[in-house]
Amino acid sequence: MHPFDDLTPEEIHRARIAVQSLHRGEELVFKGITLEEPDKNIMIKFLQDGLSGKIQDPPPRQAYCVYYIKASDTLMTTWIDMKTNLVSKSEAPSNEFHGNVDFNEVDDVEKMVMQDPAVLEQIRRLKLPPHLTVIAEAWGFGSDGLADRERQYQVYMFVSEVGKPDSNHYARPLSFSPVVDPVRMKVLRIEIIPTGADWTLKPLGPYEDNGRNEYVPEANDLRTDLKRLHVSQPDGPSFSIDDGNVVRWQKWYMRVSFNYREGIVLRNICYDGRPLFYRVSLSDMTVPYADPRSPSHRKQAFDLGDVGAGLVANNLKLGCDCLGSIAFLDGFISDRRGNPLRKENAICIHEQDNGIGWKHTNYRTGRACVVRNRELVIQTILTVSNYEYILAFIFNQAGQMNNQVRATGILSTCAIDQETQVEFGTIVHPGVLATHHQHILSLRIDPAIGSYSDGNSLACQESSPFPHEPTFNPHGNGYISKTRIIEKSDGVDIDINRGQTYLIQNPNILNSINGRPISYKIHSPPMQKLLASPDSFHYKRAEFADHEIYITKYQPDELFSGGQFTNQSRGGHGIKKWAARRDNVENEDIVVWVQFGLNHIPRIEDFPVMPVEMMTVSLKPVNFFTRNPAIDVPPSTLASNQSVQVNGCCGITSSL
Amino acid sequence: MHPFDDLTPEEIHRARIAVQSLHRGEELVFKGITLEEPDKNIMIKFLQDGLSGKIQDPPPRQAYCVYYIKASDTLMTTWIDMKTNLVSKSEAPSNEFHGNVDFNEVDDVEKMVMQDPAVLEQIRRLKLPPHLTVIAEAWGFGSDGLADRERQYQVYMFVSEVGKPDSNHYARPLSFSPVVDPVRMKVLRIEIIPTGADWTLKPLGPYEDNGRNEYVPEANDLRTDLKRLHVSQPDGPSFSIDDGNVVRWQKWYMRVSFNYREGIVLRNICYDGRPLFYRVSLSDMTVPYADPRSPSHRKQAFDLGDVGAGLVANNLKLGCDCLGSIAFLDGFISDRRGNPLRKENAICIHEQDNGIGWKHTNYRTGRACVVRNRELVIQTILTVSNYEYILAFIFNQAGQMNNQVRATGILSTCAIDQETQVEFGTIVHPGVLATHHQHILSLRIDPAIGSYSDGNSLACQESSPFPHEPTFNPHGNGYISKTRIIEKSDGVDIDINRGQTYLIQNPNILNSINGRPISYKIHSPPMQKLLASPDSFHYKRAEFADHEIYITKYQPDELFSGGQFTNQSRGGHGIKKWAARRDNVENEDIVVWVQFGLNHIPRIEDFPVMPVEMMTVSLKPVNFFTRNPAIDVPPSTLASNQSVQVNGCCGITSSL
Repeated sequence: MHPFDDLTPEEIHRARIAVQSLHRGEELVFKGITLEEPDKNIMIKFLQDGLSGKIQDPPPRQAYCVYYIKASDTLMTTWIDMKTNLVSKSEAPSNEFHGNVDFNEVDDVEKMVMQDPAVLEQIRRLKLPPHLTVIAEAWGFGSDGLADRERQYQVYMFVSEVGKPDSNHYARPLSFSPVVDPVRMKVLRIEIIPTGADWTLKPLGPYEDNGRNEYVPEANDLRTDLKRLHVSQPDGPSFSIDDGNVVRWQKWYMRVSFNYREGIVLRNICYDGRPLFYRVSLSDMTVPYADPRSPSHRKQAFDLGDVGAGLVANNLKLGCDCLGSIAFLDGFISDRRGNPLRKENAICIHEQDNGIGWKHTNYRTGRACVVRNRELVIQTILTVSNYEYILAFIFNQAGQMNNQVRATGILSTCAIDQETQVEFGTIVHPGVLATHHQHILSLRIDPAIGSYSDGNSLACQESSPFPHEPTFNPHGNGYISKTRIIEKSDGVDIDINRGQTYLIQNPNILNSINGRPISYKIHSPPMQKLLASPDSFHYKRAEFADHEIYITKYQPDELFSGGQFTNQSRGGHGIKKWAARRDNVENEDIVVWVQFGLNHIPRIEDFPVMPVEMMTVSLKPVNFFTRNPAIDVPPSTLASNQSVQVNGCCGITSSL
Repeated sequence: MHPFDDLTPEEIHRARIAVQSLHRGEELVFKGITLEEPDKNIMIKFLQDGLSGKIQDPPPRQAYCVYYIKASDTLMTTWIDMKTNLVSKSEAPSNEFHGNVDFNEVDDVEKMVMQDPAVLEQIRRLKLPPHLTVIAEAWGFGSDGLADRERQYQVYMFVSEVGKPDSNHYARPLSFSPVVDPVRMKVLRIEIIPTGADWTLKPLGPYEDNGRNEYVPEANDLRTDLKRLHVSQPDGPSFSIDDGNVVRWQKWYMRVSFNYREGIVLRNICYDGRPLFYRVSLSDMTVPYADPRSPSHRKQAFDLGDVGAGLVANNLKLGCDCLGSIAFLDGFISDRRGNPLRKENAICIHEQDNGIGWKHTNYRTGRACVVRNRELVIQTILTVSNYEYILAFIFNQAGQMNNQVRATGILSTCAIDQETQVEFGTIVHPGVLATHHQHILSLRIDPAIGSYSDGNSLACQESSPFPHEPTFNPHGNGYISKTRIIEKSDGVDIDINRGQTYLIQNPNILNSINGRPISYKIHSPPMQKLLASPDSFHYKRAEFADHEIYITKYQPDELFSGGQFTNQSRGGHGIKKWAARRDNVENEDIVVWVQFGLNHIPRIEDFPVMPVEMMTVSLKPVNFFTRNPAIDVPPSTLASNQSVQVNGCCGITSSL
């Protein structure tokens, strides 16, 4: 067993037994059982010795377990040594921390709400026609500092079609929202949601139906002129998967793992036998909403910390989510009782063609050399209630690694009166408002540029003009690029006007041709930072959302930039605190956190399901190799790719 | 014949005859014969009446001809009426303007240089071994205001392998550069290029060979583990091409044309019968270099205006440049004698799959709806000496149009002494420097949002926090987006920190559901603007490179943002001048110019041929439709896409 292997079902089982032995007679509600990150110092030796063929003792293997003692709201974290099955450590975090939402509890809450007399009374007032019914949807409560120390759920209510369980209820939001205590499992109060342009609350009257807005194919006239497109690999894929998680493809090597919180975690990423990254994963994400009115002011999802990317991973059905020759990996998480739960087909791996990789034509001889840009995709897809994220790590033959996020799914909606407009949202259906919101993601990169044991540095590269003076730059065209090392842990920004780019460097290894430190540069999309006021709870909680880049010195247990527990968090336990140590981060064991995302001003075109919005963070080699690493890709030829010429003339005559 | 149809070979022939009749007995050197843009006012009526089935007289059809009277350096522009074959207008532009570089002249210059005694004397001093030879490569001269009124060429010299015409000579640059007068066809002088860190010039000595750096496959050990990937469309493609240039695909409609300067021009782009854009093309491009020393200080390519995207368009060989079912269009330009010249396969059209288009899973029922993101690609590829641009317009099923640019090819190089470093370039091979440079492109969008005849406006949308105050925003989370119309023609910028986005709006048509003006928004990549000093020639010439967006009121003959003639231009005749009119551009016939590009700090990985660097400008509907226009795309199913599951286990055992 490799230290980076995920817990097996058998190990999850043993961990549960060990935890239960600590709490004899008590019923436990498990939130997660997962591999504790192995000791990095030992792992570095282990990996380094592996490179030279030596065998080193692996670090101790531990399970990390998070759970509640049922009906007590006491959150516990316990570590189990997998060799001895003994508890290594167990503690109850402060009661300001809360475990993540899980779908068993959500289901319980939603069912309970639909039987609550006060809720039923509200529903009666709607005077719904017989073909309509009501659906409850539980959200994490968020924080505003007002009586929110206890764990709660905010439940949004919608109208749906009787007997059509896949009708899009998000097109029919209601303006009341029960608040639920999940420990005592009861409705605490029903909040009324304003439907005008201000805070005014209106009494609930009979429901005015504005009609359906469905996404299921049977409810839409589908276009009929889309011809089939097949992707096939007659000789099979170019990748291999060994030992269940070792992926090799086109000189790339990595270990793929999966946990309930981050979903995909990639470890020990190497190219051509040279280490690049020790560990890469999506660390956190925050989705704060713009509506200042209660209860919407608390709407701020942390989809990874509040719920879990692995917990809500889709079963990637063959042939629907991907095209071509696809391999699937299952993940194992735990259910509420701590039993192993198989997440089938949670990860898919396939190759794709992404156009031309490089090309040059010699104009003297007319000879063209062209190669295609083949990519390897390692993908997972999350459904967090209404919303979907397609998360992929993509590798190419030029030594580049991308983290691509596609945002899709259904906008979070609320009711709005007819003839009303607000500046914090867009009407996407009659009577339906989709509030502006930001998606700010945080990618954690634990680098090992060219070596497991060397220190790395983060350098800011920027370009500026030479002074226009008569000696060196008399014509005024000259400019230079300079790099500056970030010396202390910090949050830093990207100034496009100065051409700033950040490079993760290994200052101990210089390029053999040009003498520059071997590096990987970070290319991230432009991002408007968190808009919420710095003294708001949105801001305090979204620890990472104020800088495009954070750099910290590696510390175990610092994996999640928003903090270990984000559900109803209040800030103070994440990246800001760690960066504030002002550790030396020059030529050290560093961690780089890349924030990216979008300010989503909804378009009506984003409803009922939004077309994917794509964001990509790229990690590209800079003076890491001695030439284009894709120069050895075989040329694209007709014989190998079997493309065909078509005339495109379908006999349709021009009329426009 | 449709007014937007390109000139036919027969028309080019007739135009040449008509021009020649104006210059009896004189030999002419043609630079271009192309369709004069038809009168827009007449065209709007023509297109509008076409929508309602009426037939309107087309505007007069004219050819625009640019040429030199041979050996006189007199540039002429003449318009020919294609109905009468008569000259409508003829004029000699001011002698500060110069025609574009063409490959016949480049060939003549390069051959002449290689026979020039002074050049041969320099070559002798190199004392080359018998397996090496010298290659001359002619560049546009650029401008610095010093004795550059006359048209000239700057010729760069390289060493190459005897008998290996596709050896990469860019890995062996020489440090002398002849300057050529192309009218008298003679070498004016030989300039020495500094090879140290400053302006010091060194006498040319025997050539020190630093070895080859080849990109041709036979000179490289190719990787052998890349398996074949086929794309096939068993029922043919989903697009049709009628009348040679009318492309229909998935509710899209457009006319594709081709000219020597812009390459692809798209006109009358509609979705589902609704007009979107009257005309879209890449208008201009500048590539200024960072080396302040002579002669590099003049290095600033305008690849479209100085040469021509159509002139240097590649023959897109079937199955090498694209994958799948591909249609090709030829283009027609003119040769130096004014005869029609077929550019075979200059444009390719094909479909591609770009991952998931939208997805939602109902967590209650587990039902997933997912569609793929099929795209139509209309592509051309340019080779401008060492460098390649892959230019594509890409359409999807969600009403989105992209202009994607892939930069590839070979870096422009010069010689550098061993053990020398400079801050304005990167060593990419021993003794070889690739200078920093910017690529700034200018996309011209002549919009017709929702109507041919309505005025359009450009709106700047930005997001800002509500004030954190107790009445409306007591929790401090609220934020709003507002739009502001640009009232006067101007250059404007994108401030990421304020979340600025620009929307092209039709204020006369409001969305039927939400009452907002129908719009298309511009999403362009972040760009560092021109770094050259504002009083430099680089800056004066790159009229468009100081703002991400320009907006002007439509004027005929304002097609090229750097000006009609960019070769050795001095500025003052492009977008800056037009914007300075401060025309009213609110609800008017506007043109929007989008600048984008990259500051290329070369990596050693960009040599010998660079992996594609991708930049995309997107035009996305915003409240133009009433819902996601791709909601009617048929779902992706295994039956239709025939994907297969693989286990990825190739029996390779883990060793790392």
